[in-house]
Amino acid sequence: MPAADPAAVSELRLRWGGGGDDAGGASRLWIGVGALAHAAPRLEPWLAGRTVFVVAQPPVLEGHGAALDALTAAAGRRVDLPVPDGEAAKTVAVAGELWRAMLDAGGKRDSRLVTFGGGSAGDLGGFVAGCFLRGVEYVQVPTTLLAQVDAAIGGKTAVDLPGGKNTVGLFHHPRAVVADTALLASLPRGELRSGLVEVVKMAFFLDDALLRRVEDDLEDLLAGDAAALAPVVTAAAAAKIGVVESDVREGGRRRLLNFGHTLGHAVESALGYRGLRHGEAVAYGILFALRLAEARGPGWLDPAAGDRLRRLLARLELPPLPADALAVDDLVERLGRDKKARESGVVWVLPASAAAGGVEGRMVTEVGAGEVRRHLAAFLDDPFAPATPRSAGGGVL
Amino acid sequence: MPAADPAAVSELRLRWGGGGDDAGGASRLWIGVGALAHAAPRLEPWLAGRTVFVVAQPPVLEGHGAALDALTAAAGRRVDLPVPDGEAAKTVAVAGELWRAMLDAGGKRDSRLVTFGGGSAGDLGGFVAGCFLRGVEYVQVPTTLLAQVDAAIGGKTAVDLPGGKNTVGLFHHPRAVVADTALLASLPRGELRSGLVEVVKMAFFLDDALLRRVEDDLEDLLAGDAAALAPVVTAAAAAKIGVVESDVREGGRRRLLNFGHTLGHAVESALGYRGLRHGEAVAYGILFALRLAEARGPGWLDPAAGDRLRRLLARLELPPLPADALAVDDLVERLGRDKKARESGVVWVLPASAAAGGVEGRMVTEVGAGEVRRHLAAFLDDPFAPATPRSAGGGVL
Repeated sequence: MPAADPAAVSELRLRWGGGGDDAGGASRLWIGVGALAHAAPRLEPWLAGRTVFVVAQPPVLEGHGAALDALTAAAGRRVDLPVPDGEAAKTVAVAGELWRAMLDAGGKRDSRLVTFGGGSAGDLGGFVAGCFLRGVEYVQVPTTLLAQVDAAIGGKTAVDLPGGKNTVGLFHHPRAVVADTALLASLPRGELRSGLVEVVKMAFFLDDALLRRVEDDLEDLLAGDAAALAPVVTAAAAAKIGVVESDVREGGRRRLLNFGHTLGHAVESALGYRGLRHGEAVAYGILFALRLAEARGPGWLDPAAGDRLRRLLARLELPPLPADALAVDDLVERLGRDKKARESGVVWVLPASAAAGGVEGRMVTEVGAGEVRRHLAAFLDDPFAPATPRSAGGGVL
Repeated sequence: MPAADPAAVSELRLRWGGGGDDAGGASRLWIGVGALAHAAPRLEPWLAGRTVFVVAQPPVLEGHGAALDALTAAAGRRVDLPVPDGEAAKTVAVAGELWRAMLDAGGKRDSRLVTFGGGSAGDLGGFVAGCFLRGVEYVQVPTTLLAQVDAAIGGKTAVDLPGGKNTVGLFHHPRAVVADTALLASLPRGELRSGLVEVVKMAFFLDDALLRRVEDDLEDLLAGDAAALAPVVTAAAAAKIGVVESDVREGGRRRLLNFGHTLGHAVESALGYRGLRHGEAVAYGILFALRLAEARGPGWLDPAAGDRLRRLLARLELPPLPADALAVDDLVERLGRDKKARESGVVWVLPASAAAGGVEGRMVTEVGAGEVRRHLAAFLDDPFAPATPRSAGGGVL
């Protein structure tokens, strides 16, 4: 664990609210190499004399426990709550066990909770914090790239039901997010790839400079270079904060962040959350959304923008889509059950050329089930192919 | 079910918020004889074309289902979710079953939920609505006096853990509360008594005219006279709204409503939620708080106010406190686990004479465990006795 280098740690802030039903406030974000050591003195008053519950995956505690110890040293007492790895942690039953353990350990409304691990530990821990005694304060310490750039930011918490991911949860904003990119150096390449997909998702609509940086530094990023990752995590977090602050409860703009997640969630669920990582499934979801966008006609999206996105995703060397394990009818049924669906139908986020130049995301509901079925069949055959062959300029029939 | 008489239905409003983490808004309250029929056209746009989930106890549906049918007729489809009676409904496991049922039935973010029953159906249903797909809108239709004057108002939702009541939940405000006092006519006397304790709790601090009305009309109220109950429910709801609006998240003033609940919850939990109804346990909790207040010395609370409260509670003819089933050590341990406790100790709400005249509630934390033990022992012997015998003026030693 490197010592805190103030210059390497960025400080951001996410403002979320105010008003009656929620006291409102701000989440602080510390991002970069040494963020944990940087955060420790700043969180000391928040922890001093309190019980702190740590929701963590045991392998993460084994690998990085010392870095966390520095953070929680100020607490009056620490109670570790080990949770399973991955989506297995995100069940109503596991949440119930944690609540019982917290109550039995004497947890109070002014106790604290810290999540330490990937997105699943954060989603579960945030949900548990949000409902224990109607809400205790918590801090997210994400240890994967995916969680640092996306899952830990914005106050969304959830567990899964057998029929759908993130179907039970609430908005509960963390007091702080501590994203130490030094923790990412030991991640497997697939984990880094998975997180980079979420970075690309945000950069494509929101931050062209970030998209270029990912294109330029892709090899260093996939190798877990903490210094290369720090500015990317910071920029992605800043982009997400911008969207979340403009639409905290996900009525409108925030749903742009679901780009690629409509089909992505259905694929993950159809595969039983095995075989593909979340970000990898989202990458396929992005490719499918791109296909739907291209099918809306030549004026919908600048072909160069679509090609650029497809090229970057190809460089990630995704594991192949297990098309044999996926069926069109089953995917369509799962799409209808997605929690983003309204009673009026499935909501797609499609890239489109913006009037002001560049690319924007548009919420589209009028994609018919028949159209989805037809494109899905072709997509399962060749996920990287565009929707319709584009003629090479003035092609002859 | 009497036809709606507009003159008999009061309309109130509870404003709760605004700002980022919650969109904010207002709960509407319709209270009185015929409130359900009155509410039906007003909720029609909210229900039209949607799926409505009804969380209800089967006996309540059997007894009053027709009145509810009128309300839900506007929905596109209705899915009933039967739940057990009483605290047995308020478990994480039951909540998990409802979430699965809602997902399997095609529930969406813009689906609706209606609770129909006593406080437990409302607490559970509100929690289930608050977490399903991170929150769907709901309406409370309380069918007991307790729920109409207290549980259904203010956005508190919860289920229980084996170690403590209301230990898992969140704040989730209903779109509307429909309190039809015609439904109360069939309640057993014990249910009405239980609800009246919560009325007395609020009136004692907040509304002397309401306290006098309860004193005057006590027999009609205990007999379930819907016309006598309507103004009492309305005034109690208005008092609660005033407190909640001034402190929606229960940082300060709202905690006054916990008067009698500190020991009340411990007694209920020690009895396994059997033997005493919630309001009856709270009545004993009020008597104990009164005793602690009197023990703070002659200047703390006007003896006439304490006597008046004790006299009114005596007229309710509470079932005897099952002192044999209660032990001081066990109660003290349960008090420490109460979710109102802070890490710094148990919080008591004690009545005190206000500087401006009348009675106010004060939050008191500096009651030592030894003092609580001593008073508890005496209280279990004779719950209605004051803390210390007051001499009849110039008594001789």
